[in-house]
Amino acid sequence: MELKKMLAEKSKENYGIYLPHLSIDCVVFGFQDASLKVLAVKLKDQPLWGLPGGYIRKEESMDQAASRILQERTGAANIYLQQFRVFGDLNRSEGFFDGYDDDLWHKQRYVSVGYYALVDFSDVTLVTDEFSDACEWLDVGNLPEFMMDHRLILDKALSALRKQLNYKPIGLRLLPAKFTMPELQKLYEIILGKKLNRGNFYRKMLRFGILEKLNESRKGGAHKAPDLYRFEPEKYKDALRNGLQSEW
Amino acid sequence: MELKKMLAEKSKENYGIYLPHLSIDCVVFGFQDASLKVLAVKLKDQPLWGLPGGYIRKEESMDQAASRILQERTGAANIYLQQFRVFGDLNRSEGFFDGYDDDLWHKQRYVSVGYYALVDFSDVTLVTDEFSDACEWLDVGNLPEFMMDHRLILDKALSALRKQLNYKPIGLRLLPAKFTMPELQKLYEIILGKKLNRGNFYRKMLRFGILEKLNESRKGGAHKAPDLYRFEPEKYKDALRNGLQSEW
Repeated sequence: MELKKMLAEKSKENYGIYLPHLSIDCVVFGFQDASLKVLAVKLKDQPLWGLPGGYIRKEESMDQAASRILQERTGAANIYLQQFRVFGDLNRSEGFFDGYDDDLWHKQRYVSVGYYALVDFSDVTLVTDEFSDACEWLDVGNLPEFMMDHRLILDKALSALRKQLNYKPIGLRLLPAKFTMPELQKLYEIILGKKLNRGNFYRKMLRFGILEKLNESRKGGAHKAPDLYRFEPEKYKDALRNGLQSEW
Repeated sequence: MELKKMLAEKSKENYGIYLPHLSIDCVVFGFQDASLKVLAVKLKDQPLWGLPGGYIRKEESMDQAASRILQERTGAANIYLQQFRVFGDLNRSEGFFDGYDDDLWHKQRYVSVGYYALVDFSDVTLVTDEFSDACEWLDVGNLPEFMMDHRLILDKALSALRKQLNYKPIGLRLLPAKFTMPELQKLYEIILGKKLNRGNFYRKMLRFGILEKLNESRKGGAHKAPDLYRFEPEKYKDALRNGLQSEW
């Protein structure tokens, strides 16, 4: 069935189920093969890509809605999603449905709440739903055109993730349990999109007090074997809750 | 007129003007006499304090709504408000209007967008509107009980402001044009709610590269006169836009 007909059928039902004028868009980053990816969907009969999104049920909290929406797409139940910004400009979405009935649910003005997550690739099984032709990981460094203001939403999510590196730890579950400093640095470089100074990075990371240096080193390779580290679970958790020990 | 009657009169009109289910709450911090204050209002016939708030008109953007709401309270037109978090839990506001008609506009479920600002006291003239008995600056260190989840909203705003110190400059317009390092440190200490190490603070601030040391010192006082600094306007603006030069 074509998209227009499918949306019209859903429209009336949606008015009864969801809060009007409010939507959620999810920016899900994945880390694979030393590159940063983002989860994107392609609606039927639409040339552009978009972010997975949905609406808030009248009897669920906004956070529950975000989890449900993402679970429907990825099968993953325990992805830690974090709201990062609201997109409340006029005409950010309505124009997309030019030519559709004016009372179509989807054609309302939406204020959209952006959520982002950084996930382990292996947790995720992508689901292409009835409204979509595709649901894929796209390379953040090489993105196609996005619909509505979804590229802006994505950019703001990336910016929020980068800011978060200043006060929250990152890496648990994205890196192996034991890792080297160059591996940890590579993760930061990929998220920040730039090369970092090795000495500054080491000093800063050690000052955060969340790493334990192990009495082991990475075997194999011709060079001096690099030391292995792990996150100290309690200190990592504490830093997630209370922020990194900064120099203030 | 009592609050209940006034709200009932406004209710029908509001349905035509505003987006339903969406509200805005503003956390406005002020800095005075070495203490941090927050702007609070007291509704008529209500024992508890609350944050100044309002709704989004159908034909205005969310940011415009936040500015309008705050201007109605403070007379200040150019306060830089920043959204920091959405409050979307179930039952966060409805219970407050127990005993009111179920179709009262104000009794809906609201998802509320929190905005915060840090303002110069001298810019603000407080306005007590028709629904309120009081509009005052309260000391953040000594707060009365707040209505609904407004204390949570305030706490999250303060937490956002503190995080912001990690990647954005602060102090322009809150400090005199020329200031000493101890004065700047005091501002950070008040926002962070703790004493800071002097040496670490100096090093960190200078590394940000937004300060210019002047060939002047503060006159008067028995001790060695402390050096005066000013913010370099272009570098400060650049840091606001692109974040502080951190060590990454």
